Amino acid sequence: MASIQDGHDDREIALDRVGVVNVVYPATVPERGGGVRSTEATFALFGELAEDARGTHLSRFVRVLQSDERILEPEHLERLLSSLRDALGSASASAEVEFTYFVPKVSPVSGEKSLLACEASYEATLGAGSTGGAGAAGFDVVLTVDVPVMTVCPCSLELTSGPAHTQRGHVAVSVRFNGQVWIEELVELAEDCASAPMFPILRGEDERAVLEAAYAKPVFIEDLVRCVAERLDSDVRVTWYRVEAENLESVHEHDVYACVERER
Amino acid sequence: MASIQDGHDDREIALDRVGVVNVVYPATVPERGGGVRSTEATFALFGELAEDARGTHLSRFVRVLQSDERILEPEHLERLLSSLRDALGSASASAEVEFTYFVPKVSPVSGEKSLLACEASYEATLGAGSTGGAGAAGFDVVLTVDVPVMTVCPCSLELTSGPAHTQRGHVAVSVRFNGQVWIEELVELAEDCASAPMFPILRGEDERAVLEAAYAKPVFIEDLVRCVAERLDSDVRVTWYRVEAENLESVHEHDVYACVERER
Amino acid sequence: MASIQDGHDDREIALDRVGVVNVVYPATVPERGGGVRSTEATFALFGELAEDARGTHLSRFVRVLQSDERILEPEHLERLLSSLRDALGSASASAEVEFTYFVPKVSPVSGEKSLLACEASYEATLGAGSTGGAGAAGFDVVLTVDVPVMTVCPCSLELTSGPAHTQRGHVAVSVRFNGQVWIEELVELAEDCASAPMFPILRGEDERAVLEAAYAKPVFIEDLVRCVAERLDSDVRVTWYRVEAENLESVHEHDVYACVERER
Amino acid sequence: MASIQDGHDDREIALDRVGVVNVVYPATVPERGGGVRSTEATFALFGELAEDARGTHLSRFVRVLQSDERILEPEHLERLLSSLRDALGSASASAEVEFTYFVPKVSPVSGEKSLLACEASYEATLGAGSTGGAGAAGFDVVLTVDVPVMTVCPCSLELTSGPAHTQRGHVAVSVRFNGQVWIEELVELAEDCASAPMFPILRGEDERAVLEAAYAKPVFIEDLVRCVAERLDSDVRVTWYRVEAENLESVHEHDVYACVERER
Repeated sequence: MASIQDGHDDREIALDRVGVVNVVYPATVPERGGGVRSTEATFALFGELAEDARGTHLSRFVRVLQSDERILEPEHLERLLSSLRDALGSASASAEVEFTYFVPKVSPVSGEKSLLACEASYEATLGAGSTGGAGAAGFDVVLTVDVPVMTVCPCSLELTSGPAHTQRGHVAVSVRFNGQVWIEELVELAEDCASAPMFPILRGEDERAVLEAAYAKPVFIEDLVRCVAERLDSDVRVTWYRVEAENLESVHEHDVYACVERER
Repeated sequence: MASIQDGHDDREIALDRVGVVNVVYPATVPERGGGVRSTEATFALFGELAEDARGTHLSRFVRVLQSDERILEPEHLERLLSSLRDALGSASASAEVEFTYFVPKVSPVSGEKSLLACEASYEATLGAGSTGGAGAAGFDVVLTVDVPVMTVCPCSLELTSGPAHTQRGHVAVSVRFNGQVWIEELVELAEDCASAPMFPILRGEDERAVLEAAYAKPVFIEDLVRCVAERLDSDVRVTWYRVEAENLESVHEHDVYACVERER
Repeated sequence: MASIQDGHDDREIALDRVGVVNVVYPATVPERGGGVRSTEATFALFGELAEDARGTHLSRFVRVLQSDERILEPEHLERLLSSLRDALGSASASAEVEFTYFVPKVSPVSGEKSLLACEASYEATLGAGSTGGAGAAGFDVVLTVDVPVMTVCPCSLELTSGPAHTQRGHVAVSVRFNGQVWIEELVELAEDCASAPMFPILRGEDERAVLEAAYAKPVFIEDLVRCVAERLDSDVRVTWYRVEAENLESVHEHDVYACVERER
Repeated sequence: MASIQDGHDDREIALDRVGVVNVVYPATVPERGGGVRSTEATFALFGELAEDARGTHLSRFVRVLQSDERILEPEHLERLLSSLRDALGSASASAEVEFTYFVPKVSPVSGEKSLLACEASYEATLGAGSTGGAGAAGFDVVLTVDVPVMTVCPCSLELTSGPAHTQRGHVAVSVRFNGQVWIEELVELAEDCASAPMFPILRGEDERAVLEAAYAKPVFIEDLVRCVAERLDSDVRVTWYRVEAENLESVHEHDVYACVERER
């Protein structure tokens, strides 16, 4: 039976994206240490729709996902998009995948081990010109890692000669890159630019060490974002970046925000 | 035409609550200063369903809301529930209403005026035995105000003899009461028990004053909750309370929590 | 006292946006009928930061908001941004404002009146070249209205010759425009392109009429988006648009999505 | 060094719960089929605080979690709580754990395999009198599974003799029980009481079969809740239940809700 979706549309309006969103599925993510971790990811999958086509076969999106191995890394996502593009008969295909990544932490003095949860995502597009082979032209991917950090306010330190306000912040580092970039590298980069990294477990002696180090390195949200940007500027693998930071101010109910985006 | 909802159900299972949720409607809220403020509120409205009744006329819930004045105060909510109970032919009716309340703030040194947004809610039930008159038996109402505050950690102050971690916290104060309790009173109570209140605008001289006062009054989350509880214990109007606090720890990605609930 | 924010930064990295987010403040919104409605809005306010400037005076953002009348319409937002730009000494300023807008509805048969809550937002930027006067070059504003609608699936109607699946959908219509565009116009546009509009109150006779009309007008999500786009194409006031729709499929746990964006 | 938390508090206010919330950690969950699946869970962990104790050692919560195997099943959660209670020196300990559970689905005609994501949680408490051994007195656990389903409105079917409204719904089934209850059992129970279950992948022939079956079994939200309740009433393992359902009405912007709770 011919499907109604296969009919003709004469409005001459091509659609940029048609697909499914909020699809939660199991996946695996490679870790720098060498293994892979099982996770669950939230997928959005899209094709484009030619101006003369009535509709998309929406069941094909989840079928492609179901038959895929769902390994969260650029090379594999390119293969997933190639399958999706073929299944849809679409000129291009794209995906957004959000997942949680666990980074091993060791507290600075007592050596307590723990895991820090960071939200991460890939946004990938396989364009019209690409053959879908590894490294093919027309494949674009952005990796984003949202890193929780601590900041000490330089202004309050100067104002009071002591009592400063500190707060939880988040730095979302997004990059386009050549070669391999590990999620852990972006986490470490953001942490290096903050007043202090976060540790899920801190004994008393750890907390003292973290606070003394943090107070020795107060950063405005502007400093935090510029520090990350400067390091990405000097990383030859990175061809584009966007750095967004948000501080959950401890003296205010609202948050403060800074952002910089650059193409090489 | 007899509605299918009016049919008989023979499973002998009465339902505790049937109704509508996530209904967003304009409302007004009285302010301590004397006026009323227009706001928008999210309503959940419920009746109970007798074991022999097939269904509820769900359109009646929003009709009652539409024809009501929607004044967010206990006495008026009782009238709303009385109307709802009558419209449903239900033995009882209940409502949950969430809204934003703005509290005027003046910064401590420069005198900058601003408005602090606090989330507030009423949970009200009009029981079977009530006539719906003011102060009638069978009417129960809980007022909750969620107050953003600042806390300075006493432990870190002692550990380091200086550099402490500070963070944004929230205290949700819920009360059952006789007579009148203003939202502003619960806000002030929570602020008095924290290291410092929050001001949406702080100039440099304000920030210094806030931080010096906050560091002179470090509080654990346990201290914060107990302080609020102790004051509510001595308030003759309050017949029941629950105090919940959450600290957005600046040295951790997770939050810390404390809760106490007491009936007089 | 010279503030530490006024210091020099030698990293030569200008920041695209620095500011405050999640600031909840009272506001008013003009209605097509002629009046204004009090509301509360969530503001994000940004300046840019020159490459040689260390930091931004973040307290100035909320001070500008506090001293402003906060009328949610393009002309007024331009004045707000002009004040913000001056207060910051920034080359440009921008704002994002989210609020709830109530649209009066009358049910189709019984004539029951009710209010439909739609989420709306303005994203506005006042650029470097603008004087901030009304209609000045360098002022850009996007109005978005998110309209809840009902859709009937054409495919399922054809498959079964009767039993179709229907669902709640949302259409987010974003426009840049010359002159005046009322929020109500975008709501009506989205509703006209759906299978049926939404009414908070439906009596039995209304529900029958809505369903019969909806089944006579089944739409794929692609149809919905194209219909809105076609109408915006023919509206001479609209210089750019983006139409995004999301259907909360009743046969699936995930949602389906379509999007088209066009510049005239 | 004696910690400040170990100090004395003389306010004579014991706290019901003190602990950590929003702790995201890897975990495993046993599946009915025999294996275990890796997942990530959001943990809240609490102790109580005696009236004479100043504070809780909050770092101990995540240390207990880190050293635990984190297997999401009642028996193991009891061991986790026993460890936590010992580490805190608290009279009792409790935990809330939220996670995603994947249920294998096979579409009814074409046999397409897919995975349906259901949100699940355990709320567990180990009381003062318990030794922490398996099945010990003083251990209480509630399992909740939130099951997405489809509902067809009986009223609209009757009103129109054809065109009905259908929608996505959710049924949250919570149980206390003796012995073993699999998450899959609660999913099947909720699906059996709805108009139709959900399948992430439906081909045309599947969709037709699902819709025809659903229209042959229209259910009000009251019917859905009562059906689940009636089956739980007849399950000898279940000692308490709460059934909550929410329908995302396709003709309204708001949701409808029903709830029943019973102790055997």
